[in-house]
Amino acid sequence: MNLHDMIYEQAKEAKAASRRLGVLPSPIKNKALEAMAYALEERASVILTANKEDLEAARKKGTKRSFLDRLMLDENRIHAMADGLRQTAALPDPIGEGEWETVRPNGIEIRRVKVPIGVIGMVYEARPNVTADAAALCLKSGNAVLLRGGSEALRSNRVISSLLAKAAYEAGIPEGALQFIDSDDREAVGEMMRLKGLLDVIIPRGGAGLIQRIVKESQVPVIETGAGICHTFVDEGADLDMALQIAVNAKTSRPSVCNAMETLLVHEKEAEAFLPKLAEAMREKKVELRGCERTCEIITDAEKATEEDWATEYDDLILSIRVVKDIDEAIEHINRYNTGHSESIVTCDLQRAHRFQQEIDAAAVYVNASTRFTDGFEFGFGAEIGISTQKLHARGPMGLNELTSTKYLIYGEGQIR
Amino acid sequence: MNLHDMIYEQAKEAKAASRRLGVLPSPIKNKALEAMAYALEERASVILTANKEDLEAARKKGTKRSFLDRLMLDENRIHAMADGLRQTAALPDPIGEGEWETVRPNGIEIRRVKVPIGVIGMVYEARPNVTADAAALCLKSGNAVLLRGGSEALRSNRVISSLLAKAAYEAGIPEGALQFIDSDDREAVGEMMRLKGLLDVIIPRGGAGLIQRIVKESQVPVIETGAGICHTFVDEGADLDMALQIAVNAKTSRPSVCNAMETLLVHEKEAEAFLPKLAEAMREKKVELRGCERTCEIITDAEKATEEDWATEYDDLILSIRVVKDIDEAIEHINRYNTGHSESIVTCDLQRAHRFQQEIDAAAVYVNASTRFTDGFEFGFGAEIGISTQKLHARGPMGLNELTSTKYLIYGEGQIR
Repeated sequence: MNLHDMIYEQAKEAKAASRRLGVLPSPIKNKALEAMAYALEERASVILTANKEDLEAARKKGTKRSFLDRLMLDENRIHAMADGLRQTAALPDPIGEGEWETVRPNGIEIRRVKVPIGVIGMVYEARPNVTADAAALCLKSGNAVLLRGGSEALRSNRVISSLLAKAAYEAGIPEGALQFIDSDDREAVGEMMRLKGLLDVIIPRGGAGLIQRIVKESQVPVIETGAGICHTFVDEGADLDMALQIAVNAKTSRPSVCNAMETLLVHEKEAEAFLPKLAEAMREKKVELRGCERTCEIITDAEKATEEDWATEYDDLILSIRVVKDIDEAIEHINRYNTGHSESIVTCDLQRAHRFQQEIDAAAVYVNASTRFTDGFEFGFGAEIGISTQKLHARGPMGLNELTSTKYLIYGEGQIR
Repeated sequence: MNLHDMIYEQAKEAKAASRRLGVLPSPIKNKALEAMAYALEERASVILTANKEDLEAARKKGTKRSFLDRLMLDENRIHAMADGLRQTAALPDPIGEGEWETVRPNGIEIRRVKVPIGVIGMVYEARPNVTADAAALCLKSGNAVLLRGGSEALRSNRVISSLLAKAAYEAGIPEGALQFIDSDDREAVGEMMRLKGLLDVIIPRGGAGLIQRIVKESQVPVIETGAGICHTFVDEGADLDMALQIAVNAKTSRPSVCNAMETLLVHEKEAEAFLPKLAEAMREKKVELRGCERTCEIITDAEKATEEDWATEYDDLILSIRVVKDIDEAIEHINRYNTGHSESIVTCDLQRAHRFQQEIDAAAVYVNASTRFTDGFEFGFGAEIGISTQKLHARGPMGLNELTSTKYLIYGEGQIR
């Protein structure tokens, strides 16, 4: 079978399965998730063998070390995947939950309840654990799923997804609800993007290139995730010790993730007091500094930042710094260069804190806290399928609730209009 | 200026205006809506003159009578537009409303509040009143808007939108928040579809051709509206008098709208008793009947329905009828041919009513009521910008709430992760 026919058939099977999966009671879904967790642990050695082959092939291609680390599985990581499945089983099931209801003057009763979206296409890159995480969240929220992982993890993902699908089916999940696209052909993503009418949404997780390709070309609705040019603004009169702690945390606790800070803005009245301390702390963490003209006067060994720096998500130990004359300039800079992810102000002034939260256009706007908290687990959702940086459907960390749609249920006694 | 540059500039202006509009207090928005209503009434004669020119040009092109009727404005219709603006002013403002909040174990406080989407692109066909309705709903919900009406209504829409924009500006709405695309070039829609990063969403209202073109080609997220192949299923043991009233209402009260019924399904045990009565009532209303084989045995003058009939939105006085052997066959038929809009079961059986609501995949699922109620006003939203037939962001009638996004506001005291 060619690629098109294969993927089309898989999507059709997923759609058929989604009808039955969507009305399945929670206990069956939860039992299935437990069984899936058990299957991964029981067959860990098969997963590790496949993963070893993936790693060897990637090494031969001369893949970067950080990439290999993300691809690599060991016993601990498999247990972590299984734990993720169990944690998802323990979360409340959003499906069927009432959101709103009314009785109209003519007597019809209208309720809006949460229902599954239907069939979700997940397109992701190297980490094989996403296979288990995405499968768990989609099934728990009553959605069928088409999984398309990165080609470097093909062998690992193939084994993981087939263990998961088998365990799910045996525990009562409709056959075909969990589909793995077993191909390393780049065109597989192209085929998914044309599955309008079968796929209800595509959620890409990965680099900006992948995401922008899908956003531009997909006929299926897309939820954009993950691009994060996050800022921290140190306001006039801020607690500079707090600002330093927040800045160091936001930049260095995990520089490769989307909620890490890329640019620090500092009020001109604090620049002379703050920037030398900042430079020292960042140097200790081996962060390369790039600054505006005024910054370079204070931090004399900082490189000059270019226009491109303000618009770059480094995902690395690099920080750009700009001195601004007031909060207006800070807000203007952020709304111009940010990606709508997470922004923070460090301030003692209530009015400016409020203005910042009102006027900054982003999924999460912080006062006196690190942008690193933008995360489904940190927000208490118990899980996360990605962080939406768009404004439709879901914005910010996406948990189970964000994988649902709604339906109006109306009861009448013969009403006509 | 060429078309591309013109539309790009308008979108940029709208985006700049949206920042200020998004944080504007309700009273200013409401006063502006009142002023806009007054402007339409005060300058009714200018609108009518422009509308006359549109009508003459359309008549010369030999446009259909029903189309001319939709294009036509008179004093009453202008008052109705103005009243719509005033009603929108009187609705509660969703912006800033809290949706959810939590305090996390580390002490950070997280709130999710409603914010405007940003800049909305409205693409619509002949009715000039959509210009006023859409402008009102977008401004009230804090969104800037790019309006692109049908070319036949260009002169009417130009006058209406310029009166609205002027009145809005004078009442304190930021300049540029209401933009009218003053071109009858079909490529204008193409330009809008490429405004990724400036437009946050496109909402098309009109025929299936327009909507499908935008869904397929747009790089900007789209909310699909309005396609309605709606069904009524008359169950075994249903109250046949009620079923008849509902069917006649759903088919004939306004056959050209999307929530009208296109196909009636009837349980085989009720077919002989029900269909002759139905045929008589429908004949009185001049409805053409097309049936399955069994239907044609009972209603001998019904035409034979083809596969295409089941998949057609007639928007006209035509009804297709199919006899089914049970509720399973009814659900299967509906989930195969429907467009996810509105479906109804007429039944006395609680369990089957519940199953129908659970298993039918549509925005609105009725028990013992006409599908014609799927409408923002009938649902009590006080307004409607369209009826979404997709599952992301909004499903069913879209009022002010559906024109909002969300933002997480987080307060901390120096928390780091």
